Amino acid sequence: MNILVTGGAGFIGSHLIDLLLDQGHKLTCVDNLYLGRIKNIQHRLEDKNFKFYKLDVLNLKGLKEVFKKSGFSAVFHLVANSDIKQSSTDTKLDLKLNFLSTYNILEAMRINNVRDIVFASSSAIFGETDKLITEDAGPLMPISFYGASKLAAEAYISAYVHNFGMRAWLIRFPNVVGGRATHGILYDLMHQLKKNVRRIKVLGNGEQEKPYLYVKELVEGMVFIWQKAKNNYNCFNLGPVSTIKVSRIAQIILEELGLKGKTLIEYSGGERGWSGDVPRYRYSLDKVKKLGWRAQLSPEEAVRLSVRELKKEYGF
Amino acid sequence: MNILVTGGAGFIGSHLIDLLLDQGHKLTCVDNLYLGRIKNIQHRLEDKNFKFYKLDVLNLKGLKEVFKKSGFSAVFHLVANSDIKQSSTDTKLDLKLNFLSTYNILEAMRINNVRDIVFASSSAIFGETDKLITEDAGPLMPISFYGASKLAAEAYISAYVHNFGMRAWLIRFPNVVGGRATHGILYDLMHQLKKNVRRIKVLGNGEQEKPYLYVKELVEGMVFIWQKAKNNYNCFNLGPVSTIKVSRIAQIILEELGLKGKTLIEYSGGERGWSGDVPRYRYSLDKVKKLGWRAQLSPEEAVRLSVRELKKEYGF
Repeated sequence: MNILVTGGAGFIGSHLIDLLLDQGHKLTCVDNLYLGRIKNIQHRLEDKNFKFYKLDVLNLKGLKEVFKKSGFSAVFHLVANSDIKQSSTDTKLDLKLNFLSTYNILEAMRINNVRDIVFASSSAIFGETDKLITEDAGPLMPISFYGASKLAAEAYISAYVHNFGMRAWLIRFPNVVGGRATHGILYDLMHQLKKNVRRIKVLGNGEQEKPYLYVKELVEGMVFIWQKAKNNYNCFNLGPVSTIKVSRIAQIILEELGLKGKTLIEYSGGERGWSGDVPRYRYSLDKVKKLGWRAQLSPEEAVRLSVRELKKEYGF
Repeated sequence: MNILVTGGAGFIGSHLIDLLLDQGHKLTCVDNLYLGRIKNIQHRLEDKNFKFYKLDVLNLKGLKEVFKKSGFSAVFHLVANSDIKQSSTDTKLDLKLNFLSTYNILEAMRINNVRDIVFASSSAIFGETDKLITEDAGPLMPISFYGASKLAAEAYISAYVHNFGMRAWLIRFPNVVGGRATHGILYDLMHQLKKNVRRIKVLGNGEQEKPYLYVKELVEGMVFIWQKAKNNYNCFNLGPVSTIKVSRIAQIILEELGLKGKTLIEYSGGERGWSGDVPRYRYSLDKVKKLGWRAQLSPEEAVRLSVRELKKEYGF
């Protein structure tokens, strides 16, 4: 198939590109290289099945041109401001990068009769809840602008599916870790260690507890859902089978870097890391399990493997 | 209190202004007069407690100026493209008028430390479901761009409430009828009759069945909820105790205009009137009942009273 991956030079997008190219698909990647990096896709640039355009999807005119000449059969839309923390101080950032980017993609699809969109949604749309989160859970009260913009995007995808005969796979990502990460807890703490090996400061009290999924399992799950789920509108939670505490993640980093007992872990305190941080959530994964997929790695294993990969990347 | 009503020259907004001024509040109305009409607020223009600005809330600079000099204590945000049908052919209309207008209002509130927003939300955020719709119902899969844009606006209000200590009253309107209406089934059918008294064409098969609320009861319910509900984030469905079929509405119009048996009612067919039309829905009203409010008029009475008021307005 001839597939467009938006944000394909980014952390998750570049792993998705690796997987889809390995499966034999023809791919086009658009990325404005704001968060994405050429080095993430460097090893694919010579591939005859791969095309890269440096393009901001907020440029609807440019986007329409790429669509017109390419004849896509599906779009994986991963463009987003992936740094949730950053969006808590800039209300417009995610509105543009997460929501308006999605609107533009949907418009380009509608105009060019491209039916299928796979969308990187998020647990953040659900806000804060003690309940086990099913795909049908309500109410939806996001507490971050990241979550709000992803919910706004989902809402528009729903309307496009209904009005223009499109099909959608909305995949609610959990927390994601792995090589090529440019933000998130592993990035933050490991970069702190590069500056000062004696102490790290963890945002919040460390009791935050969430499902962390290894990025290669995430993209494998995404593609699996896209290939197997057959409705016009398919929503799926995706995640590992359990959760891990932020304090444990900090310990694993120190263990993997040989710093156990040598580095002091401080906590900034408070139940959440920043204003829009959801301190804990639990996903129901029954739906994706019924479809036939489950993660192989526990969050602990996912974090450990990711730290090993990032060690080299971050220059330890 | 010193209150801003956006879209206050419109169908619902102008009735809200009548009620709030009668209650002794100081009011400012902003309206771009795109759907709103000066004649709806003409009788209030000389009131010392009332100010009107012709202003498009998409003009954030102008909006900030009005906020800065006014010192509002609350905002009733009613700006919207209220014609759901129209939005099915123009994907950008509701994005601007419903969603981006709300984002601008929230920004102006944040910058000027205005805490309280009362928002005109809609049953359309829920999409199509046979279930009795509670305030906490999921999943939210709007089928119209109207519903998608209102859900996007709710998502952003939720994030603003959480991040900036605001308070919100989100009121999910049902179908609304009454004097000053500039769209909707009464407007459509009565204007058809003005052109040709012999036949009217109803969109859909007439089996669409929804709760229709009289506009004066709607604004009374809105203000009641705002005054009584005390959480930071308050969501309420609002509606009459039952539903009415579209075919019955057409009959009532003919009865009230003395045309019973004289005018042929034709149906365009299909279960929905247009692409994004939700053919039927039922609201749970337990939450607003517990707060102490219920509608006095049945949908049949609401429609009959509205036709009587509109008869004069539409020049019968």
